[in-house]
Amino acid sequence: MRVEGTTSLRVRYAETDAMGVVYYGNYFTWFEVGRSAFCRDQGTPYPEWEARGVFLPCVESHCRYKQSARYDEEVLLRTWIEDVRDHSVTFAYRVERSEDGRLLAEGWTKHAFCDRQGKLLRCPQPFSEWLESVSDSKSNG
Amino acid sequence: MRVEGTTSLRVRYAETDAMGVVYYGNYFTWFEVGRSAFCRDQGTPYPEWEARGVFLPCVESHCRYKQSARYDEEVLLRTWIEDVRDHSVTFAYRVERSEDGRLLAEGWTKHAFCDRQGKLLRCPQPFSEWLESVSDSKSNG
Amino acid sequence: MRVEGTTSLRVRYAETDAMGVVYYGNYFTWFEVGRSAFCRDQGTPYPEWEARGVFLPCVESHCRYKQSARYDEEVLLRTWIEDVRDHSVTFAYRVERSEDGRLLAEGWTKHAFCDRQGKLLRCPQPFSEWLESVSDSKSNG
Amino acid sequence: MRVEGTTSLRVRYAETDAMGVVYYGNYFTWFEVGRSAFCRDQGTPYPEWEARGVFLPCVESHCRYKQSARYDEEVLLRTWIEDVRDHSVTFAYRVERSEDGRLLAEGWTKHAFCDRQGKLLRCPQPFSEWLESVSDSKSNG
Repeated sequence: MRVEGTTSLRVRYAETDAMGVVYYGNYFTWFEVGRSAFCRDQGTPYPEWEARGVFLPCVESHCRYKQSARYDEEVLLRTWIEDVRDHSVTFAYRVERSEDGRLLAEGWTKHAFCDRQGKLLRCPQPFSEWLESVSDSKSNG
Repeated sequence: MRVEGTTSLRVRYAETDAMGVVYYGNYFTWFEVGRSAFCRDQGTPYPEWEARGVFLPCVESHCRYKQSARYDEEVLLRTWIEDVRDHSVTFAYRVERSEDGRLLAEGWTKHAFCDRQGKLLRCPQPFSEWLESVSDSKSNG
Repeated sequence: MRVEGTTSLRVRYAETDAMGVVYYGNYFTWFEVGRSAFCRDQGTPYPEWEARGVFLPCVESHCRYKQSARYDEEVLLRTWIEDVRDHSVTFAYRVERSEDGRLLAEGWTKHAFCDRQGKLLRCPQPFSEWLESVSDSKSNG
Repeated sequence: MRVEGTTSLRVRYAETDAMGVVYYGNYFTWFEVGRSAFCRDQGTPYPEWEARGVFLPCVESHCRYKQSARYDEEVLLRTWIEDVRDHSVTFAYRVERSEDGRLLAEGWTKHAFCDRQGKLLRCPQPFSEWLESVSDSKSNG
């Protein structure tokens, strides 16, 4: 049973571009909003990771765009953890228009566990246990 | 023989984040800078596309991050066209640190040909001819 | 009696910079979030203005920064209308840290009434009446 | 005799909004580009300040918008130092369209001298001497 976090936001004018819709790069900011909310809501806010010296730089990212989002629309972000490895974690996302549930975009981001200097780490406790408890892999146990 | 465009830029403070490095989503803005320069330098500035009613919304994007970029560093963007289809074109990118040529990130973005209302188009002339002339596929002819 | 709108948001990692705090330019995006919420909550969402051909480009902006905001903090935006003229409206803002009510920044933005081509307009109905009803000037009546 | 720095940039699609022009908040990013170039070109790159423990957070900012800027246009940034005090420095900016020299916006930003923890500093050497040498105040000596 995968744990799915949800959070919603309003499209900002700043996020639109001259095509009248949300600029494609801004979906990655929304993905960040989604995973921040996921970590917070599931009990391990990202600032706690950093306070313990664990950073999660993104090492790979992907997005598929289905429908445009426009200024002032409300969108729903669905976030879950798709994969956990010793040295990385992959979050996945769905962005939907709140009004009609229409899929706007979907994507994923893979993050390495690093120390402050950017050196790769094995995910330390209590984070590895937490990741296991909120990821798909749990159901495989 | 693939045509490769190059352009360089300086990392802005605005583009960095609290980890002290460029925020992962901003690489997609740099990709846009790269493909804008490519189109301009190869003779078909993107505003000309729009002036003739052809828009190129991004339908898929991907980036792999190798090294961090920091404020005030100069980076070199290499851009080329990797694939041309009837209804889409895929640009590819390499981002390098100018000082030492180190690879920072690489990625690609796939764009659909659409009219102003977002309806999918077959790529019209003179753009399809231009794309052929600057893309890999030329060498296959 | 001035009408004050309030809305809150979480600081995004994307909004921080290498100093570890929110980049100074991003407060103007927050001001936009504040005035969008104000217009929506007071019954005249900004998309309605545009749908009737009235645009509100910013012609002047100002911000005074008092305290830094950090990633994942919640901030409260207070927004009100400070001045209404025939051809412009001025919104004012206070940004506070939700946790302790500490003032982070305060500022204002002045917006002209324009048509789609950017030609200056006298504020048309029903907007001028609405502005009067939600601005300070009402109390002078 | 004031020292004026100049640098130019191309409007990015990411910087435009649904009104088809550059989003008002992005001018503050351009101001940062202008003052970064100024410091670099005049011999004191901003990373050198930070390397010596001097940070320049913005404490006040202002912009007046005159004309819109559009995607792919080249703009020229003019930057100079308008005022130097014991604990702050004020940069001023003019943004012009390169093609016709038309004024797009003008503004200023005031920055405090702080240590890494954000504590206010008197501007230390060699920076105070440098500021004197490149600012208007020199002409008053």
